Amino acid sequence: MTTNPDLLTSLSCPIPISDYPTILLAHGGGGTLTQMLIERMFLQAFDNPALEMMHDGAVVDVNGERLAFSTDSFVISPLFFPGGDIGSLAIHGTVNDLAMCGARPLGLSSSLILEEGLPMEDLWRVVQSMQAAALEVGVSIITGDTKVVDRGKGDGVFINTTGIGLIPAGVHVSPLRAQAGDVVLVSGAIADHGIAIMSVREGLEFETAIKSDSAPLSDLVADVLEVAGEQVHVLRDPTRGGVASALNEIAQKAGLGVQLAEQSLPIQDEVRGACEILGFDPLYVANEGKCIAIVARDVADAVLAAMQAHPYGQNAAIIGEIVVDHPGRVFLRSRIGGMRVVDMISGEQLPRIC
Amino acid sequence: MTTNPDLLTSLSCPIPISDYPTILLAHGGGGTLTQMLIERMFLQAFDNPALEMMHDGAVVDVNGERLAFSTDSFVISPLFFPGGDIGSLAIHGTVNDLAMCGARPLGLSSSLILEEGLPMEDLWRVVQSMQAAALEVGVSIITGDTKVVDRGKGDGVFINTTGIGLIPAGVHVSPLRAQAGDVVLVSGAIADHGIAIMSVREGLEFETAIKSDSAPLSDLVADVLEVAGEQVHVLRDPTRGGVASALNEIAQKAGLGVQLAEQSLPIQDEVRGACEILGFDPLYVANEGKCIAIVARDVADAVLAAMQAHPYGQNAAIIGEIVVDHPGRVFLRSRIGGMRVVDMISGEQLPRIC
Repeated sequence: MTTNPDLLTSLSCPIPISDYPTILLAHGGGGTLTQMLIERMFLQAFDNPALEMMHDGAVVDVNGERLAFSTDSFVISPLFFPGGDIGSLAIHGTVNDLAMCGARPLGLSSSLILEEGLPMEDLWRVVQSMQAAALEVGVSIITGDTKVVDRGKGDGVFINTTGIGLIPAGVHVSPLRAQAGDVVLVSGAIADHGIAIMSVREGLEFETAIKSDSAPLSDLVADVLEVAGEQVHVLRDPTRGGVASALNEIAQKAGLGVQLAEQSLPIQDEVRGACEILGFDPLYVANEGKCIAIVARDVADAVLAAMQAHPYGQNAAIIGEIVVDHPGRVFLRSRIGGMRVVDMISGEQLPRIC
Repeated sequence: MTTNPDLLTSLSCPIPISDYPTILLAHGGGGTLTQMLIERMFLQAFDNPALEMMHDGAVVDVNGERLAFSTDSFVISPLFFPGGDIGSLAIHGTVNDLAMCGARPLGLSSSLILEEGLPMEDLWRVVQSMQAAALEVGVSIITGDTKVVDRGKGDGVFINTTGIGLIPAGVHVSPLRAQAGDVVLVSGAIADHGIAIMSVREGLEFETAIKSDSAPLSDLVADVLEVAGEQVHVLRDPTRGGVASALNEIAQKAGLGVQLAEQSLPIQDEVRGACEILGFDPLYVANEGKCIAIVARDVADAVLAAMQAHPYGQNAAIIGEIVVDHPGRVFLRSRIGGMRVVDMISGEQLPRIC
């Protein structure tokens, strides 16, 4: 650590106040404004090597074991939605962040911020859902905290879950390990979560109800690591900001390009239709039970087979590759052969999606 | 784990809905309603041995090392107060929870829930304060998360910090280790934090400004463990609910009584005066930089000396003892020799104190 407290308090705000005098919803959207806040403010202040990795979690050495440590707060609205609720989502989200470090979960913490007036039975539904989700993964909630805020100062329930997990020997996943020639896979159809939430909020009805894909990925990731080990270079769950933002972050970290093939992106018909109606690009819509894997070309077919053999990976697909061209950027080859840039999301596409 | 998801969802809400149809502020007050929520709802649902300890954190074995894991969400209002702010408090709170497990901090996570419209410069003040507090302790914020909620659905900033730490060999602190004959110490004057916050909220002015005692206790606890090792039986920071609630919890867990001597309780004159004006009993008012230690009688003087030698423990005092009488309860011998029960706090004395 190079900073000292006196030096720090003498620094002026690193976000230009004239442009951004206050926090906007888009600062939480997972796109460029979130990235600006993290890089210019948090990384500058909290300056340390683990944080600079900007991975889904930190990795700490404990007596020769690599411990993954990851935190996430959940503020989704509405609390209950098709395919899940804030309770199951809070467990899946943190279990998945640990899985994206290559870790098996050791234990979770749960910290609730409740709003005065929350129906007690709603809390009980959420708590039961958390436990059911934890049981599926085989992880326990081993410590917790509860706070209550006055009516109108919260929104029902906010949940923070933080997890610790162990990274097995021989597993090394990091955006920095992406290499030109690597293959990019996704473990299933994209954009389900965001569209499910938006449908509820907007009161939209589709022929088939669109459900969130919220699911725990630790078993699926374990299967992938089993067949491909160190050949698995990067893992990332494309939540806020979707596949596009996740791949942009990886491309920037790795200093390489990502090239996607539009026709290979798995998207459910109902979701594609809803995206067209709502004016969303599915590449930017949040997922909560999908994982991107960037793996050595030699193992791509084996990884695909391992994903497809898992109940949460049946629609897994190879969607692109890592290239030396256009470093730090993501391109999409369209169905008709054109190429377009897939930028990082800039504003807030869907607020409070997780 | 004995529960399964199907069984769980068939259970009815374990809190009587007729008595408590909704969450009240007092459910977050650290008293009997908080305890009811934890014991009847969370412990029943999340059923596991680590959680049942209801310690300030969980202890997990990692490759032969004992890892402490503790979480806390901070919702204090106002964000800035005499002696600190939500940022420093969030670091001190979790560092102290780790210290109460006997652990030295290894790393912290920080998860922010920001309200749309929060002035960017307020966020920057909070972030700088977090980092200054972390630097004092020598711990890094190694992973984080940021969410934004719409205006009117939050209150400026809520912060979750979760920490991991290592418990040195030869340290074993737990409420279950309290023994009859043990001596109860507190590391300094009580009730400063709660009264400082209340003074700001109520616009009260005292001759001397009352400051929060918010401070990190890891060094002080290390000094105590250095002189007394395994003879330190219980450590607890008396935050929400104050010294009274902390000691009641310990008495209940240990199945023993606690006897306090009123004249030995260290209380600053200004704080005592403010408590009288505001109608508070200082035993129930929150502290954020104080620690209760329950130690073997043989080492009590050495522990007291170690506390008093530390800048954060100058006003440390022996305040009572553990007794076999009145198991599960706390009694106070008054200045004039009478005895009164010191119950657990039942309602909400000071909402959003941490």
